[in-house]
Amino acid sequence: MNYRFIINQLGLLLIVLSAVMGAVVLWVLADWLLGNASELQAVEALLTAAGIGLLSGGVMWYVGRKARSDTFGRRDALFLVAISWMVGAGLSALPFFLWVVFHPSVDSSHPFGNYVACYFESMSGLTTTGATVLSGDKPYDIESLPRGLLLWRALTHWLGGLGIVVLFVAVLPSLGVGAKKLFHTESSGITPSGVRPRIAETARILWIIYVVLTVAQIVLLRLCGMGWFDSACHTFATVATGGFSTYNASTGNPAINTPALIVIIFFMILAGANFGLYFHVLRGSIGSIFKDTEFRFYLVILAVASLIVTGSLLMNQPEITITNADVVETGVGNSALHGAFQVVSIQTTTGFATADFNQWPFLAKAVIVAVMFIGGCAGSTAGGIKVVRLWVMMKVLWAELEHVFNPNVIRPLRVGNTTVDNSLKLAVLGYVLGMALLVFGGSIVVMMLEHGNPRCDYTTAATASVATLCTIGPGLNAIGATENYGWMSTPTMAFLSILMAFGRLEIFALFVLVHPRFWMKD
Amino acid sequence: MNYRFIINQLGLLLIVLSAVMGAVVLWVLADWLLGNASELQAVEALLTAAGIGLLSGGVMWYVGRKARSDTFGRRDALFLVAISWMVGAGLSALPFFLWVVFHPSVDSSHPFGNYVACYFESMSGLTTTGATVLSGDKPYDIESLPRGLLLWRALTHWLGGLGIVVLFVAVLPSLGVGAKKLFHTESSGITPSGVRPRIAETARILWIIYVVLTVAQIVLLRLCGMGWFDSACHTFATVATGGFSTYNASTGNPAINTPALIVIIFFMILAGANFGLYFHVLRGSIGSIFKDTEFRFYLVILAVASLIVTGSLLMNQPEITITNADVVETGVGNSALHGAFQVVSIQTTTGFATADFNQWPFLAKAVIVAVMFIGGCAGSTAGGIKVVRLWVMMKVLWAELEHVFNPNVIRPLRVGNTTVDNSLKLAVLGYVLGMALLVFGGSIVVMMLEHGNPRCDYTTAATASVATLCTIGPGLNAIGATENYGWMSTPTMAFLSILMAFGRLEIFALFVLVHPRFWMKD
Repeated sequence: MNYRFIINQLGLLLIVLSAVMGAVVLWVLADWLLGNASELQAVEALLTAAGIGLLSGGVMWYVGRKARSDTFGRRDALFLVAISWMVGAGLSALPFFLWVVFHPSVDSSHPFGNYVACYFESMSGLTTTGATVLSGDKPYDIESLPRGLLLWRALTHWLGGLGIVVLFVAVLPSLGVGAKKLFHTESSGITPSGVRPRIAETARILWIIYVVLTVAQIVLLRLCGMGWFDSACHTFATVATGGFSTYNASTGNPAINTPALIVIIFFMILAGANFGLYFHVLRGSIGSIFKDTEFRFYLVILAVASLIVTGSLLMNQPEITITNADVVETGVGNSALHGAFQVVSIQTTTGFATADFNQWPFLAKAVIVAVMFIGGCAGSTAGGIKVVRLWVMMKVLWAELEHVFNPNVIRPLRVGNTTVDNSLKLAVLGYVLGMALLVFGGSIVVMMLEHGNPRCDYTTAATASVATLCTIGPGLNAIGATENYGWMSTPTMAFLSILMAFGRLEIFALFVLVHPRFWMKD
Repeated sequence: MNYRFIINQLGLLLIVLSAVMGAVVLWVLADWLLGNASELQAVEALLTAAGIGLLSGGVMWYVGRKARSDTFGRRDALFLVAISWMVGAGLSALPFFLWVVFHPSVDSSHPFGNYVACYFESMSGLTTTGATVLSGDKPYDIESLPRGLLLWRALTHWLGGLGIVVLFVAVLPSLGVGAKKLFHTESSGITPSGVRPRIAETARILWIIYVVLTVAQIVLLRLCGMGWFDSACHTFATVATGGFSTYNASTGNPAINTPALIVIIFFMILAGANFGLYFHVLRGSIGSIFKDTEFRFYLVILAVASLIVTGSLLMNQPEITITNADVVETGVGNSALHGAFQVVSIQTTTGFATADFNQWPFLAKAVIVAVMFIGGCAGSTAGGIKVVRLWVMMKVLWAELEHVFNPNVIRPLRVGNTTVDNSLKLAVLGYVLGMALLVFGGSIVVMMLEHGNPRCDYTTAATASVATLCTIGPGLNAIGATENYGWMSTPTMAFLSILMAFGRLEIFALFVLVHPRFWMKD
């Protein structure tokens, strides 16, 4: 293992995170000059964290500056990726923690008084999960945080989303065990074998696409009447399919009107699609997006699930409870808006909530849990098993069925123009099974860790496991749309932080660290 | 499709079932001569059912008598297998139903007054599930049934168990999508390609093994002090890994003493192992059993799971509640006895219960639910995904993990002396995934069908889905060890009857009927 280069790269990561914290401080100061005095609360915490990050990052970078990058192989890259999220969350948690340390006026029972809870929050940010430890009760709520911390919180999403897209599409396209290989061959313009051969070039294009999407959504939300600050924070959480809001009621806050919700739905759908597709758009070929098998299947699932949830709402209940506790009548308009918003938010693994879907009819909840597993497309910022894997899995199962009565028939399985070979089929089925086993095992561990806590029923534990592994955020019951993870014990929060990293890095990428051969010399 | 021959064979099936009913009548009459007058209650029902079966079976056999069996292909066989269990359960349900019809003295709200409930009971018998609609309250309980019906109920297990072993080992070894292929090549003595080439010969050997096991267990239980009748009924339910008892408290009735429970544990383990292995025993090579990879892994899982459950009982609770509501102290002896009994009973998918494990600590219940999925060995009477599939799945997932950091390394996967190729790996993973999806989908359907019934919580619905698909019987909460399925609505019972058939025939075998190509001419 090339530890020297790994330390060097981790140092760079810490420096970048510190620089972003510094930028937040600059924004806070500017905001203060414009008249928001209370904002200065976060400055000390952010500056101290940035200082610690800069110092430790600088030392690490310096220690490893002479490392040879030409002996940096696949295992080193995997190890670096796995440890990056762990270490990055460690630094990103500091501003939250230090804010409580520096301000004795903040109640000492504030969730951020516990470093593990801060770590959970920042891991949730960087993995674009969006699960929070902040409750809805003052002074422990989201809206009581200084705006500097809210901005930093939203930026962890944005940085994590960018990181994962660049990682999976440009740096290690084969990391996404299977699904990425498909993408690899499908959109030839963006992979090492295609038109633009170099990682740096691909990463640059993705970065541009990401920024363009971000700017576009901020402007649109502003045009819908939201303030710049809220527009930016919600945009960071949208394009990263994260889910942190600046409001206690998430997107159910009346400040986000219906046009703004529709803008958010639209951008959640874009963020859950393969970013490689937008490369074609940049080249002017918009139609080619709709020729992509995965993208079309993705839209079909979103549409069908939204229809079922909308119908289920219309038929079963007279009222919909908004996350800010308002109640609206279940008309076609409200059902379609909240049904579609919730399906899109959950399937793209964003996790925004306009309505308390925990109170919805069973069928609606079942559909929501089902799309939790599915998630977005490969090469997006979304989590879950990914639409392309679902597609391949369905095709394989259908073929296995025919295999029972036609044992000698072999039909090639195609996704777009690519033929899926047996080893790729195995990778896909293995991934889905691995995810199912992790969800099952994860929910058992949560139940054990929360032993004796009456709030943690089976449904809570199982959906906590799915919601973190698939980087969604909210689940059902005690972690439902209007609830949070702050009531859990410290060990549970630590465990769920690890699950988030597992899910974000496509489970196997982190699991390899336990494989003895990973540490052996060949 | 060679419908004529299929009808002919179905006719034979009905005739065989009717003949067994006739034998039960003879036993009842003999029993009556020995002084048990009340037994005659069941005679009319059994005779009428046998008459209907003989008549319809005879007509069907006659209609199809000139069918050519040489054009009987794989699809015909699959269709015959699928429909056999459906039709067989239809006839086997008649004695239960007719007993209520003929005896107005039986309360009209008796579960058997509903034909669908009778169908559920007989499907549960023939698929060796052991789920019952009979409650623990007189006069709707098991012990209030005439002994003739109890014997018939136990015999449906025995016939179903024999049927499935002969089917999977001798007639259609490749039906068990994957796992059976392994067996196929592993124990060369018993398959078409091996020492004894003909189906009839293999079936004859299996039949002998089955009868030998049955006789041995009956004698041993009798020696432990149980009566002949109870010994026989519990043996039928054991060797078929069924689970129907003649007592309301299942094996928790004090009439079954500790030595008898140990005999039952031993035979449940035998019944959950590959019957092909006993062929080697018949040839005098007992040691070869323990060289079988699947058998060894099976014993390891049983041992580890029993240890965990025993430890969990010892550490967490002072008392164990027996299924007859007695309470015993949690000593090492009681914990080990009830822990091991329950693990073996559930993993072999028998479903006998000595203790109300629904009241056990969470860890114990989690282990029990986990072994529900696993089930017994391929080529046994047990259900579940089967140990050999679990073995292959674990190996494949481990190899996929290495694939992430060693993309070019390919290591052959071996089970015993057999190398598992990619198409077999796919079959195994596809099966496990198919089972997981069916369990998930099944629990959603049960929740929908039981909409508004407060008894049916998520845990009940989910374990009902597992307990029927894996042919176990009891689940948790409202279908726990001391509960039953009689409270469910008629549509739910019909749905669960279908799930039992799906699980028994290794899911894909019944699913093929929905594949359009199954019905197409090539």
